[in-house]
Amino acid sequence: MIYERLKSEIVSHLSYFIGSGNAAFVVDPTRDIQQYLELAEKHGVNIKYVFETHRNEDYVIGSIELAKQTGAEIYHGDWPAWKYGNVAMDGDQFRVGSLKVTALATPGHTPGCRSYVVTDLATGDHPVLVCTGDTLFIGDAGRTDFGGPDNKVKWSTWLYESIHDKILPLGDDVIICPAHGSGSVCGAKIANREDSTLGLEKKMNPWLQLSREEFIKQKSTEHHNYAPYFKKMEVYNLEGPPEYGLGPTIQAMSPGAFERKLKEGAVVIDTRPPPSFASGFIKDSYNVSMSRLGMAGWVLPYDKPILLVLGNHLELKETVTGLARIGYDNIEGYLNPSMVSWYLTARPVERLGILTTPELKERLDTEDWTVLDVRSIEEYESGHIEGSINLYAGLLSKNLDKIPRDKPIAVICKSGTRSGFGASILLHHGLENIYNVMGGMTSWKNAGYPVAK
Amino acid sequence: MIYERLKSEIVSHLSYFIGSGNAAFVVDPTRDIQQYLELAEKHGVNIKYVFETHRNEDYVIGSIELAKQTGAEIYHGDWPAWKYGNVAMDGDQFRVGSLKVTALATPGHTPGCRSYVVTDLATGDHPVLVCTGDTLFIGDAGRTDFGGPDNKVKWSTWLYESIHDKILPLGDDVIICPAHGSGSVCGAKIANREDSTLGLEKKMNPWLQLSREEFIKQKSTEHHNYAPYFKKMEVYNLEGPPEYGLGPTIQAMSPGAFERKLKEGAVVIDTRPPPSFASGFIKDSYNVSMSRLGMAGWVLPYDKPILLVLGNHLELKETVTGLARIGYDNIEGYLNPSMVSWYLTARPVERLGILTTPELKERLDTEDWTVLDVRSIEEYESGHIEGSINLYAGLLSKNLDKIPRDKPIAVICKSGTRSGFGASILLHHGLENIYNVMGGMTSWKNAGYPVAK
Amino acid sequence: MIYERLKSEIVSHLSYFIGSGNAAFVVDPTRDIQQYLELAEKHGVNIKYVFETHRNEDYVIGSIELAKQTGAEIYHGDWPAWKYGNVAMDGDQFRVGSLKVTALATPGHTPGCRSYVVTDLATGDHPVLVCTGDTLFIGDAGRTDFGGPDNKVKWSTWLYESIHDKILPLGDDVIICPAHGSGSVCGAKIANREDSTLGLEKKMNPWLQLSREEFIKQKSTEHHNYAPYFKKMEVYNLEGPPEYGLGPTIQAMSPGAFERKLKEGAVVIDTRPPPSFASGFIKDSYNVSMSRLGMAGWVLPYDKPILLVLGNHLELKETVTGLARIGYDNIEGYLNPSMVSWYLTARPVERLGILTTPELKERLDTEDWTVLDVRSIEEYESGHIEGSINLYAGLLSKNLDKIPRDKPIAVICKSGTRSGFGASILLHHGLENIYNVMGGMTSWKNAGYPVAK
Amino acid sequence: MIYERLKSEIVSHLSYFIGSGNAAFVVDPTRDIQQYLELAEKHGVNIKYVFETHRNEDYVIGSIELAKQTGAEIYHGDWPAWKYGNVAMDGDQFRVGSLKVTALATPGHTPGCRSYVVTDLATGDHPVLVCTGDTLFIGDAGRTDFGGPDNKVKWSTWLYESIHDKILPLGDDVIICPAHGSGSVCGAKIANREDSTLGLEKKMNPWLQLSREEFIKQKSTEHHNYAPYFKKMEVYNLEGPPEYGLGPTIQAMSPGAFERKLKEGAVVIDTRPPPSFASGFIKDSYNVSMSRLGMAGWVLPYDKPILLVLGNHLELKETVTGLARIGYDNIEGYLNPSMVSWYLTARPVERLGILTTPELKERLDTEDWTVLDVRSIEEYESGHIEGSINLYAGLLSKNLDKIPRDKPIAVICKSGTRSGFGASILLHHGLENIYNVMGGMTSWKNAGYPVAK
Repeated sequence: MIYERLKSEIVSHLSYFIGSGNAAFVVDPTRDIQQYLELAEKHGVNIKYVFETHRNEDYVIGSIELAKQTGAEIYHGDWPAWKYGNVAMDGDQFRVGSLKVTALATPGHTPGCRSYVVTDLATGDHPVLVCTGDTLFIGDAGRTDFGGPDNKVKWSTWLYESIHDKILPLGDDVIICPAHGSGSVCGAKIANREDSTLGLEKKMNPWLQLSREEFIKQKSTEHHNYAPYFKKMEVYNLEGPPEYGLGPTIQAMSPGAFERKLKEGAVVIDTRPPPSFASGFIKDSYNVSMSRLGMAGWVLPYDKPILLVLGNHLELKETVTGLARIGYDNIEGYLNPSMVSWYLTARPVERLGILTTPELKERLDTEDWTVLDVRSIEEYESGHIEGSINLYAGLLSKNLDKIPRDKPIAVICKSGTRSGFGASILLHHGLENIYNVMGGMTSWKNAGYPVAK
Repeated sequence: MIYERLKSEIVSHLSYFIGSGNAAFVVDPTRDIQQYLELAEKHGVNIKYVFETHRNEDYVIGSIELAKQTGAEIYHGDWPAWKYGNVAMDGDQFRVGSLKVTALATPGHTPGCRSYVVTDLATGDHPVLVCTGDTLFIGDAGRTDFGGPDNKVKWSTWLYESIHDKILPLGDDVIICPAHGSGSVCGAKIANREDSTLGLEKKMNPWLQLSREEFIKQKSTEHHNYAPYFKKMEVYNLEGPPEYGLGPTIQAMSPGAFERKLKEGAVVIDTRPPPSFASGFIKDSYNVSMSRLGMAGWVLPYDKPILLVLGNHLELKETVTGLARIGYDNIEGYLNPSMVSWYLTARPVERLGILTTPELKERLDTEDWTVLDVRSIEEYESGHIEGSINLYAGLLSKNLDKIPRDKPIAVICKSGTRSGFGASILLHHGLENIYNVMGGMTSWKNAGYPVAK
Repeated sequence: MIYERLKSEIVSHLSYFIGSGNAAFVVDPTRDIQQYLELAEKHGVNIKYVFETHRNEDYVIGSIELAKQTGAEIYHGDWPAWKYGNVAMDGDQFRVGSLKVTALATPGHTPGCRSYVVTDLATGDHPVLVCTGDTLFIGDAGRTDFGGPDNKVKWSTWLYESIHDKILPLGDDVIICPAHGSGSVCGAKIANREDSTLGLEKKMNPWLQLSREEFIKQKSTEHHNYAPYFKKMEVYNLEGPPEYGLGPTIQAMSPGAFERKLKEGAVVIDTRPPPSFASGFIKDSYNVSMSRLGMAGWVLPYDKPILLVLGNHLELKETVTGLARIGYDNIEGYLNPSMVSWYLTARPVERLGILTTPELKERLDTEDWTVLDVRSIEEYESGHIEGSINLYAGLLSKNLDKIPRDKPIAVICKSGTRSGFGASILLHHGLENIYNVMGGMTSWKNAGYPVAK
Repeated sequence: MIYERLKSEIVSHLSYFIGSGNAAFVVDPTRDIQQYLELAEKHGVNIKYVFETHRNEDYVIGSIELAKQTGAEIYHGDWPAWKYGNVAMDGDQFRVGSLKVTALATPGHTPGCRSYVVTDLATGDHPVLVCTGDTLFIGDAGRTDFGGPDNKVKWSTWLYESIHDKILPLGDDVIICPAHGSGSVCGAKIANREDSTLGLEKKMNPWLQLSREEFIKQKSTEHHNYAPYFKKMEVYNLEGPPEYGLGPTIQAMSPGAFERKLKEGAVVIDTRPPPSFASGFIKDSYNVSMSRLGMAGWVLPYDKPILLVLGNHLELKETVTGLARIGYDNIEGYLNPSMVSWYLTARPVERLGILTTPELKERLDTEDWTVLDVRSIEEYESGHIEGSINLYAGLLSKNLDKIPRDKPIAVICKSGTRSGFGASILLHHGLENIYNVMGGMTSWKNAGYPVAK
């Protein structure tokens, strides 16, 4: 049995390539399908099926292009009304070499979610693993807010039932293969471990420790943000996205060419680490670190050129693929050789303040500052600096009026990455006297400074 | 949590690199330790411990060199009296980042076997996986014959108890990480799937379907071959093998240089596929296909130069590393460019007959042939050609007197690989009129020809 | 200055990726353009120009797809009437970073050939290297027979003048970058060294030792074969070939599926080495070794499915890319796992005899054999076995009537590869009693056997 | 003919792997010999000879370990009195397949320098390429100051004669293979192009445009810096360096472990780009960018532990190998995960000012600043800011008394890298109010600001 788990770091997405004999199937492929073609070649198998667990909202599915390239058949759930592929009904079975794949209807995260149970008939007729999509993660469970406020209780109830009546009964000994790992926008508490079983989840997944009532109550009142790019993903995944092929070719740009594009309305994202960004950046850039590239979806347009400032041009492909996975095909160029070229041509830069937490503490003890906490509500509520304002980083540009402009602003998150993003949004909108707190609340707590709840 | 499974194809050995935070441990490393160093670098961790499940008999353990290179501490069981490292007592615990590793004494395969249970305290205090060494495989259980006939029952009893009293109680939901995969000499029935859990084994592993009495009876009467190289492995793994470093440098040899070495007593192994070997090979070569390179341990000496004939010189490193894993540091050269150079210099070759199974059937129907079945006794007993002689390939050179020399000999195994090896042994010892049956008994059965049991 | 030479082993084609600053150009790209995109990314440059030295006949040019993907402009000569790109007139100059590229009209191999002279203005205004296409090779000069017999003298004269009046005057110190290396069908005597200068060629290239009269005479009477696939290449390169994209996906086929395709008229090429092929192959297969894959162009159709038997499925991509480079987009599947699967399912094979040269000598001394020498006329004339028949391998199927069928046939070439191909053609056409002479005439000469001229 | 040029970016060193048939030789190997072993394997050849052009001063030669691993013989010149290998006398010839290698005594850079001329007898008895070591570079010629002031004229005379009487007479058409490329401390004007011929050098290399008198005068009065690590290299290369093997294993360190080492006297180098360094670094760190890692040799001790702060832990191997190439085997750990961990644990950082050139201009126009130009004398003399002080970066710690401490200091170099290094040295020694000028003099000139000469 061939079993490969592929992680798309950028969106913490997991897809699976599973096979036997001359055949294989892929679960939830990304757009850059070359990785699956290479696995097929390496293992000497044909991709016979593409199984989708659901109409994803947080990345673009590559099923159509993969099916076209390989002749595979696509299967997915019965909601929404997909413009392509086939519906796998609850209980439908598929053969792939010695493997039997059984579709399970597991609504909740969306009404049409499917899980796929894999049995290896070469060793016996017991389920070996289950691809759970966004129904059940390692350490978390799917969000149920995509149907809007009115459906939250209904979808949460479905989710509870899918997990308890469909998935867990498969057996404690079944390996779980979810669609996301730690760092995903689809589950804040997903564990930083990618190997688990249903039994382990029963013991350790906080959601599986709850009663039906408590599960539904908490799930239906859970707070989630809805990034603007989700809308695009929903359309793409329902109708099929533009073909990806060899991927786009991005122009290496001199500072002059870069500046001309800026004047035409291009938007810049600067993927360097926050300290590098802070000491000098091109006016109006958004600072989106490589480790959290998906955050770009909160601010980047689909209808204007996007330009990149990279820490290293060898990260170009990873950056472009990452942004393509959330639908951005409008990247036109990257500054080459990075900021060095900008400095060499005597162009102006903007700067952002940097503070360590001891420095912040000292400021707060002696001066009048605003502390802007850009973490999620849950994170904020679990412990924050007394007097800080909580506005989620991705939502800052819609909440500028809530931020006082008459004193310095220290932007803080958990570690310094999202706060770097948030700070760049404030600067983009003309706010001044902004500082990024490196190390964030983790550092604040490590220093033993007081924490409010 | 970092989790990497490394497969040494040549000996179907599995080692594990598992880590968390800044630290990691390795279970049962091979000699070519560079692969672990590269993982440490990739993940940004230090190898803190090397855990050995037992004094292996079928490959050389790389613990000492890995410990020397990294500063790691070595732990193993209390039998035999190791010349290096520390003893992990039953219940001993080790911390590696957020992981807790607990040693379990699981005697049976050897008296000093250890299993290592891994708990991820970041998610809870329940075991997540267990490295079982040769105690429990996916689909099989360890052999218990290394203590000699007198200890078979005792060791088999221990094995039963280790599995049932120590390992299975960890929980159905625990992931199993054994020391061997399909194709190993340590378990003929190991499944062709490398992901499983204790619960799945309870349901599908044939050995776990047996009563205590039946288990001990079958295990203690199970037949196993003992390859001569095992003796060397036992010494190396007890005392520590020669350092491997960058590995040996093997000379690319012209036919002339190759021939000179032959005259000095060098032994040749030819790793080309059986059909390529059959149509022309250097006199006295052993045909050991890449996919079964470990078979070389039945015939290769440790005290004479070894020469290689490869299908492709790009397989040199894999071949040399493979043979080093079973202790052969005496490889001196390879024919370059392979057999082409031999033909170009007008040198003589020997040949071996090739038969398809329909051709064999026709011969047997009309002529007087010997069919020599070189599979294991178990395989032979599960179905063979009426009238065939069973002598295990590895033991042929000690059983030449049992083979009639007055008629053509068709050598057969399961598929054609071991029979190619066996045929080359016969030719090496001067027998004539030898044929390799391509496709072997699998083909014979597929053709619907009669099978005796 | 960036300078990368890319070798397409299969057709011994050389393309060049040369750049400076933010820009680069490619000379004579192949269809599988991903290799150039990867270089652009690695070096952080944009491909600004694609320069074609001529309308190639022996492989498919990837200019259009590369231009479409990158925005580059295509330049080529003024003959024939290309359906795409721009004409570079003699003396036209292009700037790429600090580089100046000057087009030179160098007719001869074709009337529209161009060479491209590169000057690195960062160090001075002297030519550094020249891309000569098929005008001048290392150790050889372009063929002049594509205009038909009537134009041979005229084109040969042009070639002489292009070399002597345009290229050599650039200076002895100029590095030469030709379009082919050793093994190409475009020049039998191309040196097995890929670094040279115009001065070195003046001293050591046999063609540059000749007087004008002698050059024209020899060049216009030189014998060349014209493979049927050249016709396809000419059309593709004039009009533009089908888009390549991610390349085709080839089905891994079971023996049953393979056999069904065969019955539908599929043609098989078997790329295993001759000895492997000889001991058992599927009826009617052509044996085309990986090292000479371009020979397939003599026998493969463009309008029927092609199937592959590979030595190793990891060679799939290289094989498919190689065949695509000569226009074959009609490969449908490969036997998986190779011939092993065929034998395992008890299917019939054909066989071919194998002889070493001492064995051939003995046969010829004592029996009546036909020796069929399938090398080129020039090779044959430079030394052959007394009494042998010379028919070029690629032309065998059109010359079957010239081969006696009443005695055994020993097929011979230089080493055993083309003779393996030739032997498979004879068997394909029903001839019997065929033997491939391993080591070929090289071995025959090395053995000291008599050679006729 | 096999020809591979290997570039060690860190020290801009070029080594060569050249072969034919079954054999190859390496010219001037680095310590990390695995790269040569891999090439030998790839090409299927044995390394028969290691040729050293001279007792290098700027990196550690790997000859002894390469010879030990492969059985190759080492050849070098007759000065100094090497403790290993053999002396190649002027005119000595070596055969490697079809290649003939001729040693030429070419004293000048050192008295015992050798060049190696390669002739490819397969095509004719004319030299094809020459490995010139530090005698002749592309665009520059070797330095002649290692014999001390008294020998400068003599060595410069030798150098002139070696170039004009030994190397250039080989022919304009000979390809030149020098020991260094652009960026080396061994030649400031080496061209940014790595392909050239003797004829091209005759036309474009500034040194070859000079008369004998002018050459000797300029060469013997040329200014060069002598880095402290050169002394170590001279000893290592004379006597043989410590064995490298698999290379050192560097510990991933938490901030706590890192800090403990610091207290024991460890020295830190921070390889992040200057802007990243500037916004926060560990007190006393030296900022040595990856692109100029060799600069570390000016400040790092051989007898204290060295610690690393990396931009990305994936650069660990490159950094460690780079430092090992200049003899540093005393690296003990790296901060993991980089500065993030430092911030997360609320530890203090130091900061450095950053200025663009327009900002510097404005300061200089309105305030009293010191401009410290840390480029070489030649660079300084070719154009600098009026009133700036010139002290070479590497020599700063010995010239602290020449720097006024009563006003802000703007450190400037060509682009911002060496000035970042220089600024970190000043901070290390307790100076304050330091700024790094990003873009350096290149930017200053691009802005059109006034330049003094």
